[in-house]
Amino acid sequence: MSSWPGKLITFEGVDGAGKTTQVLLTAAALEQRGYTVLTTREPGGTRLSEEIRRLLLDPQFSEMAASTEALLYAAARSQLVGEVILPALESGSVVLCDRFVDSSLAYQGYGRGLGLDLLRTVNAFALVGLGAFYTIVIDLQPEQGMRRFATRESDRLEQESVSFHRRVRDGYRALAAAAPERIRVVDGSGTPDAVQARVWAHVAALLEDGEQGAPFGG
Amino acid sequence: MSSWPGKLITFEGVDGAGKTTQVLLTAAALEQRGYTVLTTREPGGTRLSEEIRRLLLDPQFSEMAASTEALLYAAARSQLVGEVILPALESGSVVLCDRFVDSSLAYQGYGRGLGLDLLRTVNAFALVGLGAFYTIVIDLQPEQGMRRFATRESDRLEQESVSFHRRVRDGYRALAAAAPERIRVVDGSGTPDAVQARVWAHVAALLEDGEQGAPFGG
Repeated sequence: MSSWPGKLITFEGVDGAGKTTQVLLTAAALEQRGYTVLTTREPGGTRLSEEIRRLLLDPQFSEMAASTEALLYAAARSQLVGEVILPALESGSVVLCDRFVDSSLAYQGYGRGLGLDLLRTVNAFALVGLGAFYTIVIDLQPEQGMRRFATRESDRLEQESVSFHRRVRDGYRALAAAAPERIRVVDGSGTPDAVQARVWAHVAALLEDGEQGAPFGG
Repeated sequence: MSSWPGKLITFEGVDGAGKTTQVLLTAAALEQRGYTVLTTREPGGTRLSEEIRRLLLDPQFSEMAASTEALLYAAARSQLVGEVILPALESGSVVLCDRFVDSSLAYQGYGRGLGLDLLRTVNAFALVGLGAFYTIVIDLQPEQGMRRFATRESDRLEQESVSFHRRVRDGYRALAAAAPERIRVVDGSGTPDAVQARVWAHVAALLEDGEQGAPFGG
């Protein structure tokens, strides 16, 4: 499906859904099977994008406008795509990214009510050169996700209301329903290993699909 | 021309053209005539936008992609418009802004070769709610501008080549030719007072225009 020898799989979901853990478990499983894997995260993943991340998550910037937020995410994404993701795909790696463009659509679009079309246009600017990619949404009730990070200090976005996080979750499900060829939804409840078994079923299917169609990581 | 009681006048030009000085002189002249004036600058002008400015101008980020740069400028602009410019216009002030959206078109569009249409779309996102505004381009050969800041340390954009700055200058002239109802070009050579006399002629005309048409600062 992609014009690159490598493949990009993005992991999405509400805060506390378990994305970071599933990226790590998936990377380990892929490496065990001989794939070269690069894991990264959004916003961040480059020197400059991590600086932008610092601004985005800093609770002191409560005055941040929704449009500013969306543009900062797109800026961090643009740098990550050009500096890290594209070179890794060109060299044949499997890239696993903790959050990507669907986070902007779910959080700024469904969560904050910005227009999806405008967000897609802004992000088209950030994704220049990137071909097709796959997305796994780890689906969890936001209340369950919020319990998972209740023991540490929360960042600016995690401090949003439960109703905001519910809109985000519903947004992810709507995005998945509209793009079933790209987005797979996985039940995020249970132990990390139980969730990984569900995630892996999809990754394995994408691998097979890749082996039949375009090469998946060589 | 604007839907707000106040008016926004932006000052544009190559580095070293004398924008900052002309903003200050124009503000003083307007205040002397009883106008309430707010001066600001781009990128910057708010707590968050100044942080974004720091990233944009830091020479250590030589790896910054052109698209990232354009999105960061738009992010800083979006915050400045919502947090500072719109409230000042609503309260009837004359807002003088040192650089604005034409800087993105001249530097990222003409200077770096990004598409003007894409830049306009990204910036439309940043300018939500803003009505018409006026722009004064202080025109100077980039070599003359560069001599003016040769005595201090230059930032990331000032370090670009002479040919880059020539494209920027030509870009400003092309933008002005395409929007003569909004953009006035002023010869930036000579003393600050000589340039201010030329700038003021346009500001005064805009004031009169405003008094005949929509109110200009009440």
